[in-house]
Amino acid sequence: MPELKITYFDFPGRAEASRLALHIGGIPFTDERLLVDEFVTAKPSFPYGSLPVLTVDGQLLAQSAAILRYCGCLADLYPADALEAARADEVVNVVVEFVAGLEEIGGSAEEDDDNGVQMRVLDFVNQALPKFLGGLDRRLQSFGEGPAAVGAGITIADLAIYVCLLNIAAGAFEPVSMKVVQGYTRVVASFEMVRTHPKVVAWNNQIARKAADVRQRAEAGMPN
Amino acid sequence: MPELKITYFDFPGRAEASRLALHIGGIPFTDERLLVDEFVTAKPSFPYGSLPVLTVDGQLLAQSAAILRYCGCLADLYPADALEAARADEVVNVVVEFVAGLEEIGGSAEEDDDNGVQMRVLDFVNQALPKFLGGLDRRLQSFGEGPAAVGAGITIADLAIYVCLLNIAAGAFEPVSMKVVQGYTRVVASFEMVRTHPKVVAWNNQIARKAADVRQRAEAGMPN
Repeated sequence: MPELKITYFDFPGRAEASRLALHIGGIPFTDERLLVDEFVTAKPSFPYGSLPVLTVDGQLLAQSAAILRYCGCLADLYPADALEAARADEVVNVVVEFVAGLEEIGGSAEEDDDNGVQMRVLDFVNQALPKFLGGLDRRLQSFGEGPAAVGAGITIADLAIYVCLLNIAAGAFEPVSMKVVQGYTRVVASFEMVRTHPKVVAWNNQIARKAADVRQRAEAGMPN
Repeated sequence: MPELKITYFDFPGRAEASRLALHIGGIPFTDERLLVDEFVTAKPSFPYGSLPVLTVDGQLLAQSAAILRYCGCLADLYPADALEAARADEVVNVVVEFVAGLEEIGGSAEEDDDNGVQMRVLDFVNQALPKFLGGLDRRLQSFGEGPAAVGAGITIADLAIYVCLLNIAAGAFEPVSMKVVQGYTRVVASFEMVRTHPKVVAWNNQIARKAADVRQRAEAGMPN
């Protein structure tokens, strides 16, 4: 197994699906989480100047979908069947595209003195969002009964959906909230399957313990 | 080999890389090209209401990057080595992201009575564009000598780069022109390798002959 390091920030964002893939697969990796200052210093060393980056035996790999696919293959969370693999890629790419739209809306929403921006946010919530969630839900229905997005078990497609909704639930894309997801039953089934997966529960507990520890040390004036 | 149909419009856009992959691999497929009216009628039957769509033994597959990867695997234009495969995915995804930005600029540029829009176009040309092309060029340099983007031979990464530049050269993203590509030597080397590939030359001649035939029949008042 290659030596792996995922470099990102200390939140789920675009790296969590790959972290979870490796964690579920029981594959050791360094979970490097940069502070903004550290990112700014190291930025020129990252391909395209952005994160996440996966380091594989010292070689850099960029683009969250490419990283997730690679980690998914290592972790046996990528379908062996060619058409199911392509469906998993389809779902991952649709989610990446949707998150790019959400990020733009999140950025725009802050400039709330601009009517044009507010209209774009409203357009996105009323049109792009149901188009994505409705389209995805119908696709998952056509792929099978579920709860997994593609095939019989958890794949990178479920991880991509889970992390997208996790970011929405955490308020990362306000004003878009989890309310918008209600009714898309196959999407929610995939999300719930990942959320309640024992390894995911363990991972979330572990992250929460680390965060509590960092807070406690900060309050006590101790170094991390 | 499955029965394949690529459905898109009668221009390169987001389908040409997949068409070329199958053509280079000698894999038979139906090259379905819809008129806008036909697309509008059939739109509800496409996943997410958009094109391209690949039909594999009657099963639909959406998202151009997923389609390209699937076609690349069939055509033996996808690296066997896991890290090289991930690099090819990285390049394909970076190009898809960049083309999404170009499309937005192309759309914005038409509203030329709006100073804000003109500023966004200028920002894109001066910042996002060199960031993409410079970042991609440095990545390809780090991957090897070339001319192929990844590894020793042509892959889906080269096809994605080629079609992106082909669309720029055809004026699809005005005011962005091929001038912006000059100087990015590894990107240009990959593009030139595909452009001069005998199967690509044959494909382009075949498309040009078809287009000329359609024009001639239209001028003579004959049905296509």
